[in-house]
Amino acid sequence: MNYYKLLLKPQDVLVDVAEGRTLKEAMNDAGLVFDFPCGGRGTCGKCRVKISKGVGTPVAKEQELIPSKELDAGVRLACMTAVYNDLTVELPDQTKLQHHILIDSEKKDMQVDPHLKKVFVEVDKPSRETHSSDWRRLKKSLVKQGYMGSELESSVAILRQMPDLFRAANYRITAVMFENVVAGLEAQDTSKSMLGMAFDIGTTTIVGYLLDLYSGAELCVVSTLNPQTSFGADVISRLTFVGHEEKGLMKLQAAVVEAINKLIAEAAERAAVTRSQIYGISIAANTCMHHLFLGINPQSIAVAPYVPAVSEPLVVDALELKIDINQAGKVFVLPNIAGFVGADTVAVLLATELDRSEDVKLVIDIGTNGEIALGSRGKIVACSAAAGPAFEGAQISSGMRGAVGAIDHVYYRDKLEYTVIGGGKPLGICGSALLDTVAGLVELGIINKRGKFIAYEQLNDQAAKKYKENLIQHEGQGAFLLADAGITGHGRPIMITQKDIRELQMAKGAIAAGIRILMKTCGVETEDIKEVLLAGAFGNYLNPHSACAIGLIPEDLESKIQMIGNAAGTGAKLALLSLSQFRRAADIAETVDFVELGSYPKFNSIFGECTYFTVK
Amino acid sequence: MNYYKLLLKPQDVLVDVAEGRTLKEAMNDAGLVFDFPCGGRGTCGKCRVKISKGVGTPVAKEQELIPSKELDAGVRLACMTAVYNDLTVELPDQTKLQHHILIDSEKKDMQVDPHLKKVFVEVDKPSRETHSSDWRRLKKSLVKQGYMGSELESSVAILRQMPDLFRAANYRITAVMFENVVAGLEAQDTSKSMLGMAFDIGTTTIVGYLLDLYSGAELCVVSTLNPQTSFGADVISRLTFVGHEEKGLMKLQAAVVEAINKLIAEAAERAAVTRSQIYGISIAANTCMHHLFLGINPQSIAVAPYVPAVSEPLVVDALELKIDINQAGKVFVLPNIAGFVGADTVAVLLATELDRSEDVKLVIDIGTNGEIALGSRGKIVACSAAAGPAFEGAQISSGMRGAVGAIDHVYYRDKLEYTVIGGGKPLGICGSALLDTVAGLVELGIINKRGKFIAYEQLNDQAAKKYKENLIQHEGQGAFLLADAGITGHGRPIMITQKDIRELQMAKGAIAAGIRILMKTCGVETEDIKEVLLAGAFGNYLNPHSACAIGLIPEDLESKIQMIGNAAGTGAKLALLSLSQFRRAADIAETVDFVELGSYPKFNSIFGECTYFTVK
Repeated sequence: MNYYKLLLKPQDVLVDVAEGRTLKEAMNDAGLVFDFPCGGRGTCGKCRVKISKGVGTPVAKEQELIPSKELDAGVRLACMTAVYNDLTVELPDQTKLQHHILIDSEKKDMQVDPHLKKVFVEVDKPSRETHSSDWRRLKKSLVKQGYMGSELESSVAILRQMPDLFRAANYRITAVMFENVVAGLEAQDTSKSMLGMAFDIGTTTIVGYLLDLYSGAELCVVSTLNPQTSFGADVISRLTFVGHEEKGLMKLQAAVVEAINKLIAEAAERAAVTRSQIYGISIAANTCMHHLFLGINPQSIAVAPYVPAVSEPLVVDALELKIDINQAGKVFVLPNIAGFVGADTVAVLLATELDRSEDVKLVIDIGTNGEIALGSRGKIVACSAAAGPAFEGAQISSGMRGAVGAIDHVYYRDKLEYTVIGGGKPLGICGSALLDTVAGLVELGIINKRGKFIAYEQLNDQAAKKYKENLIQHEGQGAFLLADAGITGHGRPIMITQKDIRELQMAKGAIAAGIRILMKTCGVETEDIKEVLLAGAFGNYLNPHSACAIGLIPEDLESKIQMIGNAAGTGAKLALLSLSQFRRAADIAETVDFVELGSYPKFNSIFGECTYFTVK
Repeated sequence: MNYYKLLLKPQDVLVDVAEGRTLKEAMNDAGLVFDFPCGGRGTCGKCRVKISKGVGTPVAKEQELIPSKELDAGVRLACMTAVYNDLTVELPDQTKLQHHILIDSEKKDMQVDPHLKKVFVEVDKPSRETHSSDWRRLKKSLVKQGYMGSELESSVAILRQMPDLFRAANYRITAVMFENVVAGLEAQDTSKSMLGMAFDIGTTTIVGYLLDLYSGAELCVVSTLNPQTSFGADVISRLTFVGHEEKGLMKLQAAVVEAINKLIAEAAERAAVTRSQIYGISIAANTCMHHLFLGINPQSIAVAPYVPAVSEPLVVDALELKIDINQAGKVFVLPNIAGFVGADTVAVLLATELDRSEDVKLVIDIGTNGEIALGSRGKIVACSAAAGPAFEGAQISSGMRGAVGAIDHVYYRDKLEYTVIGGGKPLGICGSALLDTVAGLVELGIINKRGKFIAYEQLNDQAAKKYKENLIQHEGQGAFLLADAGITGHGRPIMITQKDIRELQMAKGAIAAGIRILMKTCGVETEDIKEVLLAGAFGNYLNPHSACAIGLIPEDLESKIQMIGNAAGTGAKLALLSLSQFRRAADIAETVDFVELGSYPKFNSIFGECTYFTVK
């Protein structure tokens, strides 16, 4: 896939955008706050931006809503402009180029305080008087910079560099310090340059953020499919692979490390930096991906009592993990909470600052597993709900990931309408459209409490009868047609089958049961919850009303829902930029109470209830 | 070369002996105290031992000195019995199977206190209540054993072992601890088994001692030629190789590591243990060998101001250096003092305890470089004298190392007599015989103060005239014939030439000047020096009288000379067995004052004087 550079003015933020993504999606992906009053449907005309470089032909909706003079000047709608070349876009001045969550954070926490520090020193030349060794003279220089001489440590790898480097650099040396350890040495004063990358390793997708460790500026974002998917789509199938395939663990580890190294190379190329300028990477991942990344057998996570091998935060030499950055580089691995609530949840909590919140908040990161946390300062409980892959479009007859060609939103208007990612012919539906569709079916009474299609003749709601054409039979059961074979990209119809609805019920039932059990555990009612923060790609994309209409999230909470983007990624960034945030992650992992849903009393009946729909 | 097992009774000490070495030499090599009143010449008949297994035919001197009944019972002279098969030897009961130096040491220091500790724990099984990770439960077990939970550390390599190992061992685990770091994990209780090896890496020879880290018992001794000799015989030629040959440094490092790994394998095989039972090795070496072993460029040692890259003691993972022992194993590298006074000298000082001595002592370790230390508790000065390889038989026309066929001692009796290592035909002379020969030439006035041969006609001493046959001409200059071509193993004459004497003058002049300068630096006279301790293979082998007669060591000190065997090896053993001794080594390296001879005022004239002989 091609990527283009999107330069956002006046903030001068550079974002890399996959071909065909809209400006709305690109800003959303980057976690930027921008207002789309009509939800990005191209109807309100409010999301105007000015494209000062690279502007293309306006689409019909833009011609309709924007005066031609402004069109000529490059004004476009962010929700309608797809990216097919490098663009420079001027945003309205008040646009906040930050995550919601970062805006809410106390400023002091965002102060950059990296784990690694660079210290430029002029080392004494060797002297006949003292016969002092290279290492001793370096220590002397570092003591002048405030280090404790007796605590300074080095390694054979560093000692090997000293003699030649010192002499070649005429004793002008930049030491890369990790606490009291000299982790790297460089010739001359390079103390102004230090980059890092934060990674969120998802079961399906790996996202990496290249950051300047001094300014905190994000230089670019890169992402790729987790190549472990070729060994198994979900956590359980990968655990099976580890158990049955010889050297399976090391194969999976090598695959993810290779993918990360490719992302590092890609990010370095795009930002026009070298890999050796990158000194640290941070890792947020679920417990299984965490263990696989480190090459630790994760199988104990899958069997009762579901304990991980390690939950503490780790700092590992990049060399040991074969991560291709500066040879002094470190890998900062966020801690896990339990077998199914991993470092990705810790990262989300780090970003959302639930541990510092006076208000009770509910945080949901929906992926193949839904990680849910509820609480405020003093007490947070978390659980993992096995939603399965329905929200990601898998196990759904016409399902697909949220890529070009996916129907992403569905609207029950005079007739059924939908939007397609990239704007072309539809190829399938992604999770957000599944939610929209089923929400409509529930609200129109087309399916009943148990999710079963009602025969057309028995429909009560007149509005429902408008969609007669969409109500079809498939394999002897009711189904709902979204796009006829004649208008799809592949010539097959796109529909929601009875089985698809069952899959969705399982998925939403798992999440809803998790929320209900956490609320019971905390003794919290919906009115006590001040905010619902939806994290993750899917959480960021769904229509909150649809989520509530199907009962994924309690209806009372609809108005409290906020999308917070890839909060796990944001947490990984925080942990990379700031030692104190990394330490805070350890405290979070230590104090969050894990609720194991499977052993919760009456879990099965609660889950069963939660698979139902609330029909008016 | 073949090696045979020598079992010494009643102490049950097993020593490995190279083919052809005498029992005297074998005991000497192993640092055992045994009395040879005639110096091992086979004349006094006092060094009787009983060979209860593997005895061979007695040599003439034994038949002469031992009654036939005793001969039949296996009684032999230790100085005359060469080893050509496995032997069991019964020593007189009073034989002390210890180094001199260890006898003198305070008992408490020999208490075994290894760096690595093994702790057997029964780790809690995983529980549904706590969801506590494997690592956390291991920490809990270690805390019960007195460790501080918050200070315990692990590594990815160890974490990788936990899940499978814990379950396979049913949570009965032995942790190998290095301070607060879990360095290794083993199934079940292996806490009773931990071995180590101490290495003395010489420029020419590498010696390794396999030790039980709990009892301190020595299981066997192995040695080999330093394979770096094929890249250069001495330190300077190896430095040149590093400077000129691509990847020269890494080639030299790989060579020494390979040799050490072979010695480890050999020692393990002989002692019937596995390499994985070996958890630590210690390294004593001169500064250049030290740097080459670690893969650190040593070239700065060779150019003014002669500083090493590192002087501090180091603890390195065996894996990092590719040392083939237990994967949790550590390498303990003794510290250097300066560019030419290395960790071997520190080891000698550790063994001789100069830093604790009330009396002033002079310690000399003669090799290609002579390391000399003088002092007592409170002040020790040390220097390195560039003796060159003459004492090792190199650069000497008929010279050879102290191996089978070497004339090792020379006696001026009615006619010239000598002993040959292994007892066969002579092939050359080694350093000790060179000393004996030249000492006689000096004492008989056959050479003058400047080392020049006097014409036979001008000899004053009647005794000298007895050796008329030996006084020959070679290439137009005087020379001294030791063995005529007709009686040597190779059919060439063995002699000492004028040039050989010049070489010896340079060598002994360097050492003597070093001693003189250290004495001046300390303000010490010969009468202040209570002991002269000669370390190293050559120091252990020379005739003290000869050494004083040629002026290598001041004559007044002759009666104070003690041979202390391979003290560098003993120091390496102490540093391996005891953490406190390893730390003491750091203190020694820190406090010993290094005197750089080359920059000492009037060094050249002092050296020049010291090359002269004192003729009566």
